Amino acid sequence: MPRYRLLIEYDGGPYAGWQRQADIPTVQQAIENALLALGGESLIVKGAGRTDAGVHALGQVAHVDLAREWKGEKLREALNAHLALAGDSVAILAAEPAADDFDARFSARARHYLYRILNRRAPPAIERGRVWHVKRALDAAAMHEAAQLLLGKHDFSTFRASLCQAKSPVKTLSRLDVVRDGDIIEVHASAPSFLHNQVRSMVGSLKLVGEGSWKPGDLKAALDAADRTRCGPVAPPDGLYLARVEYQSISGED
Amino acid sequence: MPRYRLLIEYDGGPYAGWQRQADIPTVQQAIENALLALGGESLIVKGAGRTDAGVHALGQVAHVDLAREWKGEKLREALNAHLALAGDSVAILAAEPAADDFDARFSARARHYLYRILNRRAPPAIERGRVWHVKRALDAAAMHEAAQLLLGKHDFSTFRASLCQAKSPVKTLSRLDVVRDGDIIEVHASAPSFLHNQVRSMVGSLKLVGEGSWKPGDLKAALDAADRTRCGPVAPPDGLYLARVEYQSISGED
Repeated sequence: MPRYRLLIEYDGGPYAGWQRQADIPTVQQAIENALLALGGESLIVKGAGRTDAGVHALGQVAHVDLAREWKGEKLREALNAHLALAGDSVAILAAEPAADDFDARFSARARHYLYRILNRRAPPAIERGRVWHVKRALDAAAMHEAAQLLLGKHDFSTFRASLCQAKSPVKTLSRLDVVRDGDIIEVHASAPSFLHNQVRSMVGSLKLVGEGSWKPGDLKAALDAADRTRCGPVAPPDGLYLARVEYQSISGED
Repeated sequence: MPRYRLLIEYDGGPYAGWQRQADIPTVQQAIENALLALGGESLIVKGAGRTDAGVHALGQVAHVDLAREWKGEKLREALNAHLALAGDSVAILAAEPAADDFDARFSARARHYLYRILNRRAPPAIERGRVWHVKRALDAAAMHEAAQLLLGKHDFSTFRASLCQAKSPVKTLSRLDVVRDGDIIEVHASAPSFLHNQVRSMVGSLKLVGEGSWKPGDLKAALDAADRTRCGPVAPPDGLYLARVEYQSISGED
């Protein structure tokens, strides 16, 4: 069965996350439903990252083995037609043939996340559900400075959800940039892989730095403690986007 | 009664436009409902521009006369609390005292609109309802070049809705820039005032230039004809935002 690679955008608001679960809408299920409508068979779509309920994606990647050969554009158009019919807020940006040993999750060499904070007094009207609304003025420069203390290889237990299934809490964070653009503060996080809730946990703690409740040293001490109870309140899913998944030697990538 | 000026953001999707109508939700009504909840009296909010059904605003301006004095921030917070309670996708970005002769509509000296086109094959998942999805590749540079032919003082009858109530079809267009940023094409339109549907009519015709169906000269000929039947298909409301309203000598403006 020929393998295909899908590049996927979604608004995570209506979904209980990426991963299929009984009786509740998920992104994986939405795409599998579209494939079923397309080919008449139940197929399993495997994603690069299992985003949580309410988390969005600008560039989730998944692979699936189809019963027959498809032209990439035809597959993309057909899937989007079925997704639109079902009223899903999921779009297939690209579909292309992949090598048999391509695995969306295990072949990935880096994940890039974006976290968006709307930092103003008034609540979001247009971006409701797609930003974290923080009323108190945040010092983005202080957040960025503190964020640099988290770069590199560390035991990230402080920033790890209790239900995280990773074998080790040791991860290597390669980028954590905090940039303000008007009322929006963007946090860019990159790593080969992340622990469950790691980005939202780091952003929740950076927010404490931004409002002045924590000094950068407090963030470092929280990291060094490797203790979940030292984490700031976890940031909500609304602001989180799986922006891009990076693979080795795929043409057009990087 | 002291007059207040409101700066308003809204997602126009759920509303039948700005202006109050019997039995259907409108933005004006949502704000008037919030004022009623706040002060116990029916007040009339007057907006700078009557946006159509589905059209958004990043910076609509309105004025209202209140029964008593309010501190601007208190008024903004109270209105936002009531709007949130009602589930409205309307946010008051700022509320401040205004001169008795300030009129949101008649004191305005310029309106700035933004029109956003998503130009890619896949439909929008995250920006559904907030962009015009155009699948066919558009040449934004050609659109920009043609747009410059519309600048200045002209009879814009070609780009005017048949139900437009303006006394004259002559308007002065001061800016019409078309800029591509990745898959997004932004059209920035500025004028002291616009005819009904003028921006959407111009964008719909510029799209014909972008896809190559029209040459820039065709756009100019359509303008010169001053004939509504010469307009391209009107662009949908989804992509249109009232971005900013400009007033003379208001501190902090310009």
